[in-house]
Amino acid sequence: MKAVVYKEPYKVEVEEVDDARIEDPTDVVIRITSTAICGSDLHMYEGRTGAEPGIVFGHENMGVVEEVGPGVASLSERDRICLPFNVACGFCKNCENNKTGFCLTVNEGFAGGAYGYVQMGPYRGGQAEYLRVPFADFNALKLPPGDEHETDFAMLADIFPTGYHGAAMADVQPGETVAVYGAGPVGLMAAYSSLLRGAARVFSVDRVPNRLALAEQIGAIPVNFDEVDPVEYIVDQTDGDGTDKGIDAVGYQATESGGDQEQPAIVLNNLVYTVRATGRIGTVGLYVPSDPGAPSEEAGEGRLLFEVGKFFEKGLTMGTGQANVKSYNRYLRDLIIAGRAEPSFVVSKELPLEEAPDAYERFDNREEGYSKVVLHPHAA
Amino acid sequence: MKAVVYKEPYKVEVEEVDDARIEDPTDVVIRITSTAICGSDLHMYEGRTGAEPGIVFGHENMGVVEEVGPGVASLSERDRICLPFNVACGFCKNCENNKTGFCLTVNEGFAGGAYGYVQMGPYRGGQAEYLRVPFADFNALKLPPGDEHETDFAMLADIFPTGYHGAAMADVQPGETVAVYGAGPVGLMAAYSSLLRGAARVFSVDRVPNRLALAEQIGAIPVNFDEVDPVEYIVDQTDGDGTDKGIDAVGYQATESGGDQEQPAIVLNNLVYTVRATGRIGTVGLYVPSDPGAPSEEAGEGRLLFEVGKFFEKGLTMGTGQANVKSYNRYLRDLIIAGRAEPSFVVSKELPLEEAPDAYERFDNREEGYSKVVLHPHAA
Amino acid sequence: MKAVVYKEPYKVEVEEVDDARIEDPTDVVIRITSTAICGSDLHMYEGRTGAEPGIVFGHENMGVVEEVGPGVASLSERDRICLPFNVACGFCKNCENNKTGFCLTVNEGFAGGAYGYVQMGPYRGGQAEYLRVPFADFNALKLPPGDEHETDFAMLADIFPTGYHGAAMADVQPGETVAVYGAGPVGLMAAYSSLLRGAARVFSVDRVPNRLALAEQIGAIPVNFDEVDPVEYIVDQTDGDGTDKGIDAVGYQATESGGDQEQPAIVLNNLVYTVRATGRIGTVGLYVPSDPGAPSEEAGEGRLLFEVGKFFEKGLTMGTGQANVKSYNRYLRDLIIAGRAEPSFVVSKELPLEEAPDAYERFDNREEGYSKVVLHPHAA
Amino acid sequence: MKAVVYKEPYKVEVEEVDDARIEDPTDVVIRITSTAICGSDLHMYEGRTGAEPGIVFGHENMGVVEEVGPGVASLSERDRICLPFNVACGFCKNCENNKTGFCLTVNEGFAGGAYGYVQMGPYRGGQAEYLRVPFADFNALKLPPGDEHETDFAMLADIFPTGYHGAAMADVQPGETVAVYGAGPVGLMAAYSSLLRGAARVFSVDRVPNRLALAEQIGAIPVNFDEVDPVEYIVDQTDGDGTDKGIDAVGYQATESGGDQEQPAIVLNNLVYTVRATGRIGTVGLYVPSDPGAPSEEAGEGRLLFEVGKFFEKGLTMGTGQANVKSYNRYLRDLIIAGRAEPSFVVSKELPLEEAPDAYERFDNREEGYSKVVLHPHAA
Repeated sequence: MKAVVYKEPYKVEVEEVDDARIEDPTDVVIRITSTAICGSDLHMYEGRTGAEPGIVFGHENMGVVEEVGPGVASLSERDRICLPFNVACGFCKNCENNKTGFCLTVNEGFAGGAYGYVQMGPYRGGQAEYLRVPFADFNALKLPPGDEHETDFAMLADIFPTGYHGAAMADVQPGETVAVYGAGPVGLMAAYSSLLRGAARVFSVDRVPNRLALAEQIGAIPVNFDEVDPVEYIVDQTDGDGTDKGIDAVGYQATESGGDQEQPAIVLNNLVYTVRATGRIGTVGLYVPSDPGAPSEEAGEGRLLFEVGKFFEKGLTMGTGQANVKSYNRYLRDLIIAGRAEPSFVVSKELPLEEAPDAYERFDNREEGYSKVVLHPHAA
Repeated sequence: MKAVVYKEPYKVEVEEVDDARIEDPTDVVIRITSTAICGSDLHMYEGRTGAEPGIVFGHENMGVVEEVGPGVASLSERDRICLPFNVACGFCKNCENNKTGFCLTVNEGFAGGAYGYVQMGPYRGGQAEYLRVPFADFNALKLPPGDEHETDFAMLADIFPTGYHGAAMADVQPGETVAVYGAGPVGLMAAYSSLLRGAARVFSVDRVPNRLALAEQIGAIPVNFDEVDPVEYIVDQTDGDGTDKGIDAVGYQATESGGDQEQPAIVLNNLVYTVRATGRIGTVGLYVPSDPGAPSEEAGEGRLLFEVGKFFEKGLTMGTGQANVKSYNRYLRDLIIAGRAEPSFVVSKELPLEEAPDAYERFDNREEGYSKVVLHPHAA
Repeated sequence: MKAVVYKEPYKVEVEEVDDARIEDPTDVVIRITSTAICGSDLHMYEGRTGAEPGIVFGHENMGVVEEVGPGVASLSERDRICLPFNVACGFCKNCENNKTGFCLTVNEGFAGGAYGYVQMGPYRGGQAEYLRVPFADFNALKLPPGDEHETDFAMLADIFPTGYHGAAMADVQPGETVAVYGAGPVGLMAAYSSLLRGAARVFSVDRVPNRLALAEQIGAIPVNFDEVDPVEYIVDQTDGDGTDKGIDAVGYQATESGGDQEQPAIVLNNLVYTVRATGRIGTVGLYVPSDPGAPSEEAGEGRLLFEVGKFFEKGLTMGTGQANVKSYNRYLRDLIIAGRAEPSFVVSKELPLEEAPDAYERFDNREEGYSKVVLHPHAA
Repeated sequence: MKAVVYKEPYKVEVEEVDDARIEDPTDVVIRITSTAICGSDLHMYEGRTGAEPGIVFGHENMGVVEEVGPGVASLSERDRICLPFNVACGFCKNCENNKTGFCLTVNEGFAGGAYGYVQMGPYRGGQAEYLRVPFADFNALKLPPGDEHETDFAMLADIFPTGYHGAAMADVQPGETVAVYGAGPVGLMAAYSSLLRGAARVFSVDRVPNRLALAEQIGAIPVNFDEVDPVEYIVDQTDGDGTDKGIDAVGYQATESGGDQEQPAIVLNNLVYTVRATGRIGTVGLYVPSDPGAPSEEAGEGRLLFEVGKFFEKGLTMGTGQANVKSYNRYLRDLIIAGRAEPSFVVSKELPLEEAPDAYERFDNREEGYSKVVLHPHAA
């Protein structure tokens, strides 16, 4: 079968690889109908991780069941399903507590596994014609048959639940104000989720005009951090109090205002000053304990100069970590089916699998129209 | 009346000051029966804050109502009451949400007020014969008449609820494992509270043998960080997982293992490695945005090198800030009355008001027997 | 001043009564700008309670501060405020826990007080020119000056928070399905609140076409229980599962399908069959422990034949009771200000105070246009 | 293999039955080391259910893994495990939400399955030498090897988590007062769990002196409802307020005070008057929608005269249903291992399998020493 294979920094190719197949009784194999390229794929693409050549990319996957292992109880051939980017077992201490992003079973020696990602376990990615799904009863989310809402449902694998996770960790409640740093795909989903949860006002902070335009289109208040100091602006707009809640959808590759230098802690520290005393922060932007390209030795080991004194003085709370997709995807799916959520507004382009190498290159260059690409490996 | 007055660094005196009196219709004045010296008083005593000479110390106060303002509905003369160290209004947005440690009314321009503390508002402390209590209906917690449980109840003003706050922010649940860094009075209360909440095993980390002995006496597992690496030891004792929850009861004046040099972020960073993925940390040890005596410029402004990368990778959550005493004191009082909690086990000495200057000096020198002193201003 | 005074069953009059005035230092007096007639006023109007002649009606009140007691800290003359229908002290055990509908201070011997309502304490109602507000710092919710959103804000006194309380007790979450029995003003607010909280689909059950039309207009799915069996219909629409959550906005004066006979437990029992196993029910429709007009002796004492066996078998949870308005009104206000909620869609008519007697009569006759009347005592 | 087989009302026999074996790839088979007789087994024994002859009893099971299906990932031969009485799949909507007592997969057409119980699915009971365990990765709770704590761990299958479930649904918090109706094995576990969660005072209501003695022994306050009116007594002991929380561990076979007539709603109604306004009730005592032996036609269909009016007036909340054992058993196990819980104090006798028929007869006759029997099928 064909798959998107990582060759070397800045180079992926579509190649023939071994067919996906049932390896354990609890597996299914699906024919991929949609698989999206994620900003986090670029970390590997740019060679800023230890990813080895040969890895098949793709952790935002959905498709139709093609083959069913003998230990699978709830799935049949032709079922249309969506998969969380996390691979999870369903029975370890963390899965039991709905912390499926930190499964203790699927990735020996680490809490958490994923498809097609360095250090996230031996699971091939879904930017391919077929995909093996382990612990399929637990990992599959059933979708209505057919092809309705295809790109909306594709967002259920990662970015919609990830954005929602930010809002959930910040415990966004009806009537509250929220500051979301970052208006890329995940940041937009975080703002969108905050509004779905009933927030009164959501501020979306970014510098890219297209992103800010999308934020405004869904009802958020755009804040361009190249034009205003976002802390000052938002505190001022909230009568000097700051927002009730904050979401970091940027992570460690944050850049300074007015320039392009990385300032890994700037978003976290801005949030400390943006959110009012007693508030909560949900951090879904990525921070890593090891970053060879970091601007300092400490940052290279994940230690950042964080405003601990102010954080404590204000009595803030912060939740972090990758999304436990299964905690949210069932309900977000139902919002899509009911016509009350349409997360595909972030999708900028849909392409056949063959165009993946070109799409990666353009996405990495931040070309317009390539901010969120969905691949359809079996498109006619 | 007599009161403990701050004169200059390392010097307090018992002096005559103006009598406490009703200033607003919603005030009461109490005759102090017990008022404790707190570790946080030492920050002012040592001159490491901007406290001006003349301030009357004392934020751990209880006593008997002597005079009642005309706008007070629920209190009468002779009522025995205990007061949270926080002064709170009861009606602002934060008080309404039980965040009484961050009252927006009582201390103009800041979230939170307290008795007898620098920058915490114009409220005189209770290391004195009498104390004015503002917003008395809201701030007073009624106690049974008489003098039973006097020193237990005195712990309700600050350290018992503060320790409990750590356990509450960490959301300690029955059957869980907890690591508490620090076994001073607050750390002991945090360990004690974790056990009251049903924790299966609580590790108490400190280096002072007396403190570790008290920790063991209440059922915690003592860990001497001068003898073992606390992270390694606790992770090993929890089958390599780490504890479910962690509490920081040390704060920014933490010292390195094996020496006396301050390492302001060491406890927070140790907790990141001690607590298992998906766990929660409750931080009640003090961190400040401005510390003239800090070991580095950044630390002096409250910015510490925090293990953000690892914190995120493990999906940890952290709550911080001073305790909202009113969220807990009613229930902790009832545990004392029912005979199921006896927090006075931390009290090392009870003294008349006059001996306060000597007690401060000995406490500051860490003399044995002065780790937790309760003053009785009206003792015969 | 003028006020709406209860004279005898089916008769109220607008009469001169003693002026409202400061009675306690913590009171304010407001000039009423809007005061709404509530369905629960009809219980007294129809003589189905022990209300004595002379009582001034009105518990849905807002206005402008006219006079301020000396013990009030946060309010000034000319402040525009809205008042919860509950009168609450702010410092008892229940108020402290945000259960302001069950204040232990304001109504001796009972948990809970209100303005202008039989057995709810000595507080005169606000269908008058002026109103005394006790414990004003705690009870007042500040509004932006002017007259913008006047009727929206008037809904904050009772029905918007009451409907929201149903959704909150049912713990309605984004993506869920909800069945709301009753589409009168409170039922509509419950459906509206469920949607604000992110519900995927909300079913509104009633028999009155106008109400069902309003339900549909706000995005709910109308279900006419004279035309279909609501349990069967809703279970069928949810793939045989039943809804995740349910809200009872009818109470004990529920009537049978197809007729007019009262069946006091029919809504509760229908909910047991409408909501899926493990679901939650929020009951804001009124049930009383004493009802002289009940269809049976047991019902007269509040004992109803409830489907306990099925309720237990399905593992359901039910929350009940009048709304703790202060838990919600601040946030609902902010949704109104942000333009994201407009609860005044339920208001059918606005009238001067003088027309209250006529409005009561027409409302009691269920005349169209009188389903939700707001009175403006000082209208030009 | 040998098993306890139901023959007819009041008669079970130990007979040879087909061996337990792997039927699905996700099964394991265990050798039973301990299996307890439960009060709910008596419903079948007495012929008050539709249980057909031939059913193998036993839903409180633990043992050692004998055989492992090829789709099982986490279990090996010789692992010692305990099983929840609920059989659950681990991946349906309810299991995903930790509502494993209401699994939608294992018992077609019903929410919830169990071992050896009428209408709870096709799962043979464990009062036998061996037991087949479906969805074994999800259902098994691993125990330390050996035989330490054997009878304590046996309580993890049902009664300890069931009692705890009552306390959890009532949301018992440190410092609160709790009224537990019923001091049989489940009631004692509810009282014990309330104390483990930090309750200040727990009242245990029963009429059987042995039970009340055990309640007192664990620190509860015994209340004999044949000697005092339990509502009056408890309200009086709580200063006229009533308790913060209540637990029903009796169910529909409750009897009147002073006699033996069944009054199916008496415990629920007593709780309405025992618990203070705004309180919560957790109901784990069984209520059924169909009871052929009920004292009235309505009761026979599960409809009981419940104090709805008072329940609403007091703003009470009630949670119900069988325990979701997996939500609790891991943590309760850890309390046992840490030496902080010893639920075997309720076990009155341990017997070989052969003595089951005699034990059933004596248990049904309420003979002393047979209130909680644990069978050891492989005892030497």
